[in-house]
Parts: sequence; C-alpha cells; structure tokens
Amino acid sequence: MADRRLQEFYKEISEDLSRCVNFWLKHSHDTEYGGFFDCLGPRGEVYDDTKHVWLQGRQVWAYARLYNEEEQYRRKDILETAEKAAAFLKKFAKHPKTWKCYLALTRDGRPIKMQRTIFSECFYAMAFSELAISTGHDEYRVEALSMMDKIIYWVREDPTDLLFGYPPMAGEPEVNPLNVPMMILCLVDQMETMDTELSERYAEIAEWSVNQIRAHIQRNGTVILENVDQEGRELPGSSGRVMVPGHSIEAGWFLLNYAIKNGRPELADTAINKFMIKPFEYGWDKEHGGLFYFLDADGLSPVQLEWNMKLWWTHNEAMIAFLMAYQHTGRLEILKKFEQVFDYVYAKHVDRKYGEWFGYLNRDGTVCMDFKGGPWKGCFHVPRALLMCKKMLQEITNTN
Amino acid sequence: MADRRLQEFYKEISEDLSRCVNFWLKHSHDTEYGGFFDCLGPRGEVYDDTKHVWLQGRQVWAYARLYNEEEQYRRKDILETAEKAAAFLKKFAKHPKTWKCYLALTRDGRPIKMQRTIFSECFYAMAFSELAISTGHDEYRVEALSMMDKIIYWVREDPTDLLFGYPPMAGEPEVNPLNVPMMILCLVDQMETMDTELSERYAEIAEWSVNQIRAHIQRNGTVILENVDQEGRELPGSSGRVMVPGHSIEAGWFLLNYAIKNGRPELADTAINKFMIKPFEYGWDKEHGGLFYFLDADGLSPVQLEWNMKLWWTHNEAMIAFLMAYQHTGRLEILKKFEQVFDYVYAKHVDRKYGEWFGYLNRDGTVCMDFKGGPWKGCFHVPRALLMCKKMLQEITNTN
Repeated sequence: MADRRLQEFYKEISEDLSRCVNFWLKHSHDTEYGGFFDCLGPRGEVYDDTKHVWLQGRQVWAYARLYNEEEQYRRKDILETAEKAAAFLKKFAKHPKTWKCYLALTRDGRPIKMQRTIFSECFYAMAFSELAISTGHDEYRVEALSMMDKIIYWVREDPTDLLFGYPPMAGEPEVNPLNVPMMILCLVDQMETMDTELSERYAEIAEWSVNQIRAHIQRNGTVILENVDQEGRELPGSSGRVMVPGHSIEAGWFLLNYAIKNGRPELADTAINKFMIKPFEYGWDKEHGGLFYFLDADGLSPVQLEWNMKLWWTHNEAMIAFLMAYQHTGRLEILKKFEQVFDYVYAKHVDRKYGEWFGYLNRDGTVCMDFKGGPWKGCFHVPRALLMCKKMLQEITNTN
Repeated sequence: MADRRLQEFYKEISEDLSRCVNFWLKHSHDTEYGGFFDCLGPRGEVYDDTKHVWLQGRQVWAYARLYNEEEQYRRKDILETAEKAAAFLKKFAKHPKTWKCYLALTRDGRPIKMQRTIFSECFYAMAFSELAISTGHDEYRVEALSMMDKIIYWVREDPTDLLFGYPPMAGEPEVNPLNVPMMILCLVDQMETMDTELSERYAEIAEWSVNQIRAHIQRNGTVILENVDQEGRELPGSSGRVMVPGHSIEAGWFLLNYAIKNGRPELADTAINKFMIKPFEYGWDKEHGGLFYFLDADGLSPVQLEWNMKLWWTHNEAMIAFLMAYQHTGRLEILKKFEQVFDYVYAKHVDRKYGEWFGYLNRDGTVCMDFKGGPWKGCFHVPRALLMCKKMLQEITNTN
C-alpha cells in the first residue's frame, strides 16, 4: 500500500483522538459528585445522569492510559479527574462485604441495579491498575489486585457472591461464554502492564483463558460461536448458534497480543486466521458495508432485534486487530482489511464536527441513535482504538 | 367509508385468522412433553425448543378463546392440546411454594430463568381462566383465581416473593410502569368473562388500575409516558421520557372496554383521545409508515436500540383499538386510522404464503427477522386481534 495512505490513516486517527478526548474532557465531568456523566447527546448535552459502572471504570482507565502514554495528555487535571472518579467508585460501586459491583448508580452513588456477571468488577480492576501506573500509589495497586483475586475466585472457584442469592436453575446450561475468558485475559495483560513480575502469578489463569477462548472455534474452524458448553461442544438453540463477529475479532487481538508476548507463533496464526479473518469474512455486510452485530451460524434470523445494526465498538476492535496483525505479519491483504474498516468508519461513524462517534447505525449505515454516550457506550472503545492504532501506525511508518 | 372496504377488511382478516391458527396447529405442538414449540421459523420449522412461559400461557389462552368463540375451532383436538399444555405449565412453570413463575423452561420443563415481574404469572392466570370457560372445570377456575390473588397481593401488599431474595436497591426509583396496571385491568376483564359475579370482588383493584394507568397522561395531556413515579410525576432521565405508542394504544382499548362495560363516557373519551389518537399521531412514522417501537418525549434518540423498528403487536393492538373506538363512536376519522393500520400490515407484516406475521420489520418496512415465533412472539397478539376484529366487523357490517 502506498505510504501516502498510511500517512493519511495516521493523520486522521490522530486528529480524531484529539476530538474524542476533548469531547469527554469538556462534557462528561461531574465536578459536584465526582465520576462522569456518561449519557451525552450529539453535542455533549447530559440527557440522563445515571452513572453506569462499566463506563465509569472504563473512563478512569482511559484517562489514566492517555496520561501514561500520550505526552499531550500527561496533564494534572486529567489525572485528578480520574482519581476523583476512582474515589467515587471505591466508595459507591462495590458491595462492601462481597466486593460484587453494581451495574448502575444514581448521580450521588446510590445503587440502582446489579448483574450476575463479572464485568463491572473487571472494569473496576482495570481502572485502579492503570491509575497505579500513573501515580505509583500502592493503594491503587492493592485495590486492583484484590479485585482481580475476587474475580478469579468467582470464575474458577465459587460464584456464590456473583449470583447474590439467586443460584443457577436446574435447566440452565453450563455455558462457556466468550466474554468471560476474554476479559480475564485482558485483565492479566493489564496487571502485567502494571507490573511485569506478575506474569508468573497469572500464568495458569492466562493459559486457562486461552483454552476457554479456543474452545469457541467450531464447525471445523469455520466459525467462532459466542457460547459453547464447558466441554467445548456446540450448545443447542439460538444461543448456541449465535456469533458476534466484532467480538470474535476483539478476542483475536487479545490472543495475538498474548501470543506475541509469549512467543507462541501457532497461537498467533490461530488468532489471525480463525478469530479475525474468518469472522470478518462472514461478518461483513456485502451489501451495505460494516460488520453485522449478531449472526446465526446456520444463517437463520438471529433473535436479537439489533442483529443487523452496525456498532462502533466492533469496528474499533477490528481496526486494532488488523493493524496489530499487519504489524506482526507484514501481510498486505491484512492491511487491506484495516483499510476497509477505516474507510467505512470515517464515512459513517465519525462525527468530525462535534467529536466522538455515532455508536449505533442502521444496517444501511445511516445514524440510528445520535448520542455519543449511552448506557453501554462511554469513553473507552473509541479512545483505546485510536490510541493503539496511532502508536502502531507510528511504529509501522517509522520502520517502512 | 364504502361498505366495500369494510367487506374487504372482514374477508382479509377472516382468511388471515385461518392461516394464522393453522400455522400454530400444524407446527407448534410438542406431542411428546406437552406444551408448545414457540420458536418457529418462517415456514414453521422449530429452531429452538426452549419453552417461554409467557408464550405457553398465551397460547393456551388463545386456543381456549378460539374454542369458546369461533365455531370452526370448537374442536376436541384443540381443547385437548390446550389442556395438555396447561398441565405442563401447572407442573413446571411455577415455584411450588411461592407460585412465582419462571420466564423460560427447557423442553422437558426444567427452569432456565426467572424475572422480577408479574407477567409469566398473568398469562398463567389468563390461560387457566379461559380454559375454565371452555371446560367448566372448577379445578381450572380455582387455579386462575388463586394465581390472580397472588398477583394482586404482590402488586398491592408485599412484593417479596416476586423479587426472590433480591430486594429493591437504595437508588431504584419507585416506578409506576404502564404494563402493571394494564395487565391487572386485562386480568379483571378476563375473570369477569369467566364469571360476571366476580365484578364486585375486583371492583376496587380495577379502579386502582384505571387510576394508575391515567397517571401516565403527562405534559398537559399531550403524551403517554411509559414510566411515571408513584405520585404521578414524570421521572428524570431516559426511562422517564420513554414512550411506547403501541403500548399506549393497547392501554387505550383496555380502558375503553372497561369504560363501555361500566358506563363511563368520560373515561371512554380519555381512552380514545389521550391513549389512542395522540400516541398514534406522534407514534406513526410519517416517512415509512408504521408505528415506531420506542420514542423519547423530548425528541431525543431513545436508548433502546430497536426504537425505530416496526413490530407486529403494536399494529395488532392499534387494529383492535381503532375498530373498538369506531364501533363505540361511529366517528369515521377513527375508522380511517384503522384503515391506515390495516393497509400497512397487509402490505408489510402478513405472510400470505406460509401464514402468521413477520414480527420484526426494519424502519423502512422490510423484514428484519423472518421467524414467526421467537422468545417474545408467540400465538397471541395476531390471533387475538384477528378474532376480535373479525367479530367487531361482523357486528359493524350487520348494523350498517
């Protein structure tokens, strides 16, 4: 590919990162209670002051990561805002006894909802871990590692706290959902980034995660299924056949990153070929462009009403994945896939005028919901992808 | 309107009812375990054998109602199938101690999921009540009334059983959601249909329901909000502003039916003008036709990803509502609205070839999901609407 195109990617992504970060800096800070307004309209207007714990944790992480890795964001005010939000989370987000975290809080921190999953907790741990890097404060490190221990205990030993008095029912299948081992692998990487000496401590759980993720390769390696059983077999019904191409691709770069760090070429191949390229092929909408959100492996209608929508984060993850895979392999056809995603998102998702991305598009690429932040969309996928892609493009163009 | 058009409505709807009932009779019976397959593809293929309790209860009700009211369906095999499904529900759907019902069961009846709501229970009560009419069996009547008592107790006295050990959280607002009083009013009507002498027993709860429903008229009578607080005030944030026009219209005919039965002309006016006509005006998509699923009262993007989709049941309820309102008032402009809905659904939702309706359309009216039965769509809204409209059209054309 022409160097000119790589330069264009770099320039566009750098500018977009600035717009994105400025959007959150300008509109999302709750200076009264701490934490962030995460429901923001197209121009940054607060349309709901509920605080969604995933998004609060993710934004603390994003601010701390930007502070740690981007010279222009190594700013005292950014770090202070992140620390204030972390204090809010520490005080209000977790159940003091079990450390189970809530899903949503009122603006002033009263709990609204809890879920039987580990994700609020995972983003909580990520937030404190990255802040520990920014500040060197042991208190943050201890908080992150303590939550990490809890999560591993719930997932591997005893989920009782996680289910808060609502045990599994007799007919519930024992599922291995892709998101759980993915998040664990992501957290291990986060903890190692904080402290490389932790690698040994988490070596076993990382390998367990890799194996749990690989179990999702099904039907002779042609598909990644979102849910399989604990013996690695396909589950019956719609939930057994459901595929989320963007999620498979995200798992792909988690695996590739792990494979590169640990010198595992066979795993790198699997990550690229099975988790990125295949799902990209069957997940891309040949008619309108963009990745479908949900698909059924037998080609039936998925039961998720939003199946044919185009979501921002699937494309963010695809950008990271294909650029990482290109950087690792030098294969031009992989860079072409990055280009394909880049051209789609800068034509459809990106708001050059007010900053950040339109998260939810109709199948045909028109904007379905015009807000920039919502109950499931905060300051995370866009800045993470732009920051990672910017750095990779820098490295790629420097060595070209 | 020309009599010719009314004849056309009647003919089309009668034929559609036959196609619809035949679809379920042919494809949905689980002759091995009892109950119904409720996940059926475009031609009736079973694509998931999970048994969704709402849909099981609703189909028992629909079969019993068809048996009771339509000569051609007063068939032994239909009643037997309904009774077998009721036996399945009685055995597996409810917690033996609390009577809280599950949301979903495996094909052989093991519980998969429970929800903190009353709806599985409501459709359970409706099923047994209508079967009591079909058979005259006191056992069904007792089962229906016992569940009705439970539901009223949970809603009015103590929701503990309903929340199964997961109490409300400190930040959860005390909401009056439209669906709860609507369902109670619908159940009262069902119990009175079973036994007119029950009217007095349920007079107070019916009035409470009417008042709870009326509290959703907001902003000087211009909108029906889906959630208000227990003092009848608007709630903050997205959930306070959300409107579901099809649901408001359904509440409209529940109210109108109650108003007619109880000789309440002022309430009939409210039902028609506030709950039907207004929501139809702001809920109808001027560009592509059909009712939007969700809207925000301030005109912001709703946070529900499926907000701009066109759903079958909203149109079923609008058909019932406007025909009932026309029959009651004789106002031609109301019949025009029925016609508008009729023309839309018979162009977009109805499958003349294989029977039943495509439930989920994209905003532009193209089919988004081609199945006829799914986790939230069973044998209920289509046959109920067609049966009711057929009878009303018969009455209207006979008196013309």
